[in-house]
Amino acid sequence: MTAPKFDIEPWGLSTGGLDAAQLAHEESVFGLSNGHVGWRGNLDEGDPRGLAGSYLNGVFEEHPMPYAEDGYGYPDTGQSVINVPNGQLIRLHVSGEPFTVRHGSVEGHVRRLDFRDGTLQRSLTWTAPSGDAVEIRSTRLVSFEHRSIAAVRYSVRAVASPVEVVVESEVRANEPLPTEHGDPRVQDLLARPLVGLAGEAAGASAVVVHRTRESGLTVATAMDHVIVGEAAPDAPCVSVSTRAEGDIARTTIRAALRAGEALEFVKFVGHEWSERASVAALQQQAATGVAAAVRDGWGRIAAAQRRHLDAFWSSADVHVEGEPRLQQAVRFALFQLHQASARLERRSIPGKGLTGSGYEGHTFWDFEAFVLPVLISTSPRAAEQALRWRYATLDHARDRAKLLRLEGAAFAWRTIDGRESSGYWPASTAAFHVNADIAMAVVQYVRATGDTDFERECGVEMLMETARLWLSLGRRDERGAFHIDGVTGPDEYSAVMNDNVYTNLMVQLNLRGAAASARAHADGAGRLGIAAEEISAWEAAADAMHIPFDSARGVHPQAAGYTDLARWDFESTHPEQYLLHDHFPYFDLYRKQVVKQADLVLALFFAHESFTFEEKDRAFAYYEAITVRDSSLSAAAQAVVAAEVGHLDLAYDYLAEVATLDLDDLHGNTEEGLHVAALGGVWLALVCGFGGLRDSSSGFGFAPRLPSRLSRLTFAVRVQGSVVELEIAPTETTYRLREGGAVRFRHFGEEVVLGPDRALRLPTEAQPAVGERPVQPRSRAPRPAERALAEQ
Amino acid sequence: MTAPKFDIEPWGLSTGGLDAAQLAHEESVFGLSNGHVGWRGNLDEGDPRGLAGSYLNGVFEEHPMPYAEDGYGYPDTGQSVINVPNGQLIRLHVSGEPFTVRHGSVEGHVRRLDFRDGTLQRSLTWTAPSGDAVEIRSTRLVSFEHRSIAAVRYSVRAVASPVEVVVESEVRANEPLPTEHGDPRVQDLLARPLVGLAGEAAGASAVVVHRTRESGLTVATAMDHVIVGEAAPDAPCVSVSTRAEGDIARTTIRAALRAGEALEFVKFVGHEWSERASVAALQQQAATGVAAAVRDGWGRIAAAQRRHLDAFWSSADVHVEGEPRLQQAVRFALFQLHQASARLERRSIPGKGLTGSGYEGHTFWDFEAFVLPVLISTSPRAAEQALRWRYATLDHARDRAKLLRLEGAAFAWRTIDGRESSGYWPASTAAFHVNADIAMAVVQYVRATGDTDFERECGVEMLMETARLWLSLGRRDERGAFHIDGVTGPDEYSAVMNDNVYTNLMVQLNLRGAAASARAHADGAGRLGIAAEEISAWEAAADAMHIPFDSARGVHPQAAGYTDLARWDFESTHPEQYLLHDHFPYFDLYRKQVVKQADLVLALFFAHESFTFEEKDRAFAYYEAITVRDSSLSAAAQAVVAAEVGHLDLAYDYLAEVATLDLDDLHGNTEEGLHVAALGGVWLALVCGFGGLRDSSSGFGFAPRLPSRLSRLTFAVRVQGSVVELEIAPTETTYRLREGGAVRFRHFGEEVVLGPDRALRLPTEAQPAVGERPVQPRSRAPRPAERALAEQ
Repeated sequence: MTAPKFDIEPWGLSTGGLDAAQLAHEESVFGLSNGHVGWRGNLDEGDPRGLAGSYLNGVFEEHPMPYAEDGYGYPDTGQSVINVPNGQLIRLHVSGEPFTVRHGSVEGHVRRLDFRDGTLQRSLTWTAPSGDAVEIRSTRLVSFEHRSIAAVRYSVRAVASPVEVVVESEVRANEPLPTEHGDPRVQDLLARPLVGLAGEAAGASAVVVHRTRESGLTVATAMDHVIVGEAAPDAPCVSVSTRAEGDIARTTIRAALRAGEALEFVKFVGHEWSERASVAALQQQAATGVAAAVRDGWGRIAAAQRRHLDAFWSSADVHVEGEPRLQQAVRFALFQLHQASARLERRSIPGKGLTGSGYEGHTFWDFEAFVLPVLISTSPRAAEQALRWRYATLDHARDRAKLLRLEGAAFAWRTIDGRESSGYWPASTAAFHVNADIAMAVVQYVRATGDTDFERECGVEMLMETARLWLSLGRRDERGAFHIDGVTGPDEYSAVMNDNVYTNLMVQLNLRGAAASARAHADGAGRLGIAAEEISAWEAAADAMHIPFDSARGVHPQAAGYTDLARWDFESTHPEQYLLHDHFPYFDLYRKQVVKQADLVLALFFAHESFTFEEKDRAFAYYEAITVRDSSLSAAAQAVVAAEVGHLDLAYDYLAEVATLDLDDLHGNTEEGLHVAALGGVWLALVCGFGGLRDSSSGFGFAPRLPSRLSRLTFAVRVQGSVVELEIAPTETTYRLREGGAVRFRHFGEEVVLGPDRALRLPTEAQPAVGERPVQPRSRAPRPAERALAEQ
Repeated sequence: MTAPKFDIEPWGLSTGGLDAAQLAHEESVFGLSNGHVGWRGNLDEGDPRGLAGSYLNGVFEEHPMPYAEDGYGYPDTGQSVINVPNGQLIRLHVSGEPFTVRHGSVEGHVRRLDFRDGTLQRSLTWTAPSGDAVEIRSTRLVSFEHRSIAAVRYSVRAVASPVEVVVESEVRANEPLPTEHGDPRVQDLLARPLVGLAGEAAGASAVVVHRTRESGLTVATAMDHVIVGEAAPDAPCVSVSTRAEGDIARTTIRAALRAGEALEFVKFVGHEWSERASVAALQQQAATGVAAAVRDGWGRIAAAQRRHLDAFWSSADVHVEGEPRLQQAVRFALFQLHQASARLERRSIPGKGLTGSGYEGHTFWDFEAFVLPVLISTSPRAAEQALRWRYATLDHARDRAKLLRLEGAAFAWRTIDGRESSGYWPASTAAFHVNADIAMAVVQYVRATGDTDFERECGVEMLMETARLWLSLGRRDERGAFHIDGVTGPDEYSAVMNDNVYTNLMVQLNLRGAAASARAHADGAGRLGIAAEEISAWEAAADAMHIPFDSARGVHPQAAGYTDLARWDFESTHPEQYLLHDHFPYFDLYRKQVVKQADLVLALFFAHESFTFEEKDRAFAYYEAITVRDSSLSAAAQAVVAAEVGHLDLAYDYLAEVATLDLDDLHGNTEEGLHVAALGGVWLALVCGFGGLRDSSSGFGFAPRLPSRLSRLTFAVRVQGSVVELEIAPTETTYRLREGGAVRFRHFGEEVVLGPDRALRLPTEAQPAVGERPVQPRSRAPRPAERALAEQ
């Protein structure tokens, strides 16, 4: 692992020095975003860099999907996130020499991401080969308040000798992405996806408009510059001019600095896009956005950024006492989740957020499964917006179901705009569980927030269409049991099996949720054509759902017959042969018991009411022995269930793993972007693992317990439209109502009522583990938390 | 169906008129080949045409294999058959007007493929728009004697007025193939695969040499022309010249014909290729071949062609009395199989032979399964050469096994040169049965021919490597039973299941064959490093082989759990929704009981000793109800088993289907080439179906029986190195020894000995059917034979 070492501090992440090998990783970790605009933490001067990254949520290019052998229903058009014009670039020349860390000498290079200011700061002193030295500082933000705006406050100070400085501040289109595609057609298409449509420059500002070649999306990028500080714009030693030409708009600022004097300016960049807006309108919109930011000025924007985050932290913070690096990692996760979601408007969060181009910028089921539950508590508006995006893709999902000869709607396995873009059906089309995951997110969201407007406007229909899908996809056997054959569950080392327990249980919840929602909104259900018989049929199918059980082994098989499969030969598998799918064919993985990521164990968590404690305990131990965690989605679910069955130290090790997954680059691919679902998993491990939060149609419950290395854990959760704070100490948990009216929930199964008037103090108690700590496959045990969370 | 109507005759196939819509189909049916060179039946003048086709067995171009989502072990290089330079072209100009059937008027256009002469004849009278009329005749052959030579005898006669004729006789490279590839890179590559390296022209001859761009194969094409008949070459009215330039070599013959006079010439074309030979050597080789053909002249070559075929028919003919169209179809099948195989030299027969570019010119398992058994009796040398080709690919197969983390050798699912070229692993890599099919072909070949040289030189090693594959692929369960998990059997509407019965039984035979062969060739086995314990391990695995049986239904499931799957909804499937894989996703096909092609039923045939009669009878009826025959490989196996279980009329319907499959274009794709395995299936249906031929380690057996519409069936079969003729009449079968020493075999289970001295006359008797005629899925019953075989 070549991950950089970050200093441990509670409210930020900083690193000194600059190692080219770690640059791409840092760019992801230091990414700034508001859910609409995303800027990777590229160096201002653009070189060296790992991976250029400027994204707008929803902007992508289309490309043909090639198949060596085609098949019915295979999507023929893929989607890839592209770089929108890069407004990060500030190229500096000092007395004729271009500033780059590759030449001259750099001292005191520090970058710091501030979780409360919402800024990325950078400072260094550069001595040019000529001997002239300058101090450079930049502070960058992507505004939570001005949705389209990113800004950089940049200063360069002559240290000891007078220097001429020239700054070339750019917006640059068609910076290439590294492509995942072997197909050179796609490479060509993605190398220059943007066609310039308009460009204007005047004074210190410019605006350019582009359109994507195939997907036809229009993107406008505006910039303006305000010179601040000592070298005032009207000083004779400063000149400013701007040109827009081809793929580049460039503002050039020249200044003659005396020793000790600084040039300081703020660059405002505005990013807009639209499927439909005219070029002129979008150009105007981007320019107007920048003009408003200029009017506000850096000071007010930075202050608003801080106010916004203060508000966020006051409700969303999870306080972890006893382990400083964990506290930092938890706040990093929450900060990045907030960055990924804050200003969503009917968009989803891609698997990498807006921090990299990994997974082609696609959104997957793990958003609903691992991120949405967090947003419900930390940012319910963002949760709603993401669900409304899914709702907006219903027509695509209905088309897909029809193509597959099914009823209802089949949501995309991977997509940017809602159309299916997956190219390997056994791990996508067959993974129908995505539909139940979405449906359950709807149910959970409504249950936690009480947002019946959303339920009425979107929820009933989403639940209806998924319920219809399941009834057409499943079948009754001769004894009336309901089966779902030939599907793939969350575990991608298994595929196309019958009666995947996770899927069947989630479908059961989906069907019951659909029935409950349709009954609760009888008018809406009537308008949608849901007859009483149909609701009954959903409930009947849910009741008849077949859940296979291996009574000989006393465990639920992941799918019918799974526990009879050969076991993977873990003893003969070398540590360097992981990730297994990089070293073994699917053929062999699929026919053996080897779990890439929690599947049955995820069912123990999400469908917790369907298992007894003993079943959970046995199943957890059984699947621990065959789970290799080749996916970042696994450790969090394992942490949650480990905690439930009393293996608190193992749960803590898994929490430490998921919390450091991106910081320590445990999967070796953080350079392509952060693992957003794993960031959500940090919260789940803490809140659902140690807090024991579960919800179901019968209400909410907690089961607080602490691992030995934590002395206190504090967080807040949205319950029935109210916000409940838990402060978990080793022997006592204090419940407080932070927002909303009195709520009823269970504490270790006992129903309690929490009112606004006073806190509830109840015992913290852990379920003692029944057996020994479960054993993982050879070389696949998690790092011990004390090592993972040690000062580095 | 737009198939042309062929006149019914015993030894040929002819059609009058010319329908552009049927042209591509006719080109396949009228294809000429000797197994080395293949010429589709394109019109001499090259226009109109369906699909240009000039092939050399083994010549292909490589191209990248694209994947929307890549995976470990996916082949990255594909192979596609290409057109070698086209030597068929003879363009005629009559008094300045180019001859084409599109203009002027054509009368009496007839083409006839002669099964005994081995020629394709064509005649017509063309009246040019100017009013000048000519009689054109051409006779074409691909020589069985001169392996590299094709020849055309061409004449043009002035009917009633003097005409000037100009003939442009060409060899033309880089005629495009229609591509199956969506990927334009591959399209570009295959559009002009040949790079010219050398060209020479003199007199009436030329030779050109090309090389394929990526696969690096060198192809030499020579031609020469000999003017014969009335217009002698030294007549002043004839001039001849040749040029070679770019992609074209062209001989121009000019003649002034008086009314009634003819220009007649023979064009000899020589095709050679090599992986290694130098350009000069190959050029010389092609020229020498043509020179030798010129020396022999048309008369001797045509006579040798007839002699060759007389010899072929005297041993290979299958005489069918009572149904003239069936007789014709049977001879067509045998003729085309002979054309595909006669001059094989360490090459295989592609799925379409050398009659079209379908399946990219690849060879599949069905060669060994459906064609090789025929060749063993009709052309044992060709069978040997094809098996030696498989042997020559062993290194590729060992590499493939290693890549898949397996022992031994994994032969290619589809290939031209032995490297795996399949792009969809569930229906290729997972279809490991190809290895057992090849192994069983080795065993069958040795058993029937007694060719122990081949066994020693190749067979032992092929059986060893496949046996090693199986031992690494399978596993023992806790009770010691041997399982093979996660594989795909012959039925492509099912995939990746455990214990496919066909596979397991074929593997059992493979393992036992390997053990027997290693014991029989102890020296060779020792040199290969086969220890006694390894042989015992093969036998033990064979003995422990798990064969699932559904005792509730009394049938063998196609694979474990297969009979528990949901049944396809045949009643709701419209006739036009077949082929099902063009209208439904694999996802849905795989999880339901619907059989594309015989799988368990093929096991009933190939592993006939592993089933009781009652099991065969029940299984046949069970699978009939769910088999849709969306593959041309199915009907023959169904015919064989139908005959065995006493449904002789159903067997006859299936025979009629397989016999007319290409003639009547039943699959709608004969234009891409003949279905060679189905041609083999005609023989299998007759010989193994009505003759009841089976072989096994315990010897050969027959069970002759006739359907009501046949009065006599005569054929010869190779048994233990001898050739046994059966003449089956309704009540009596006469066995005669045609070749070799006395043989022992079973007649309806009773052992008999047939010596050279006298025929054996034994009763013909059919097993009476136990139940009603089995029923096929809605709209998928075979056409009744009386309709399929009626005069059209």
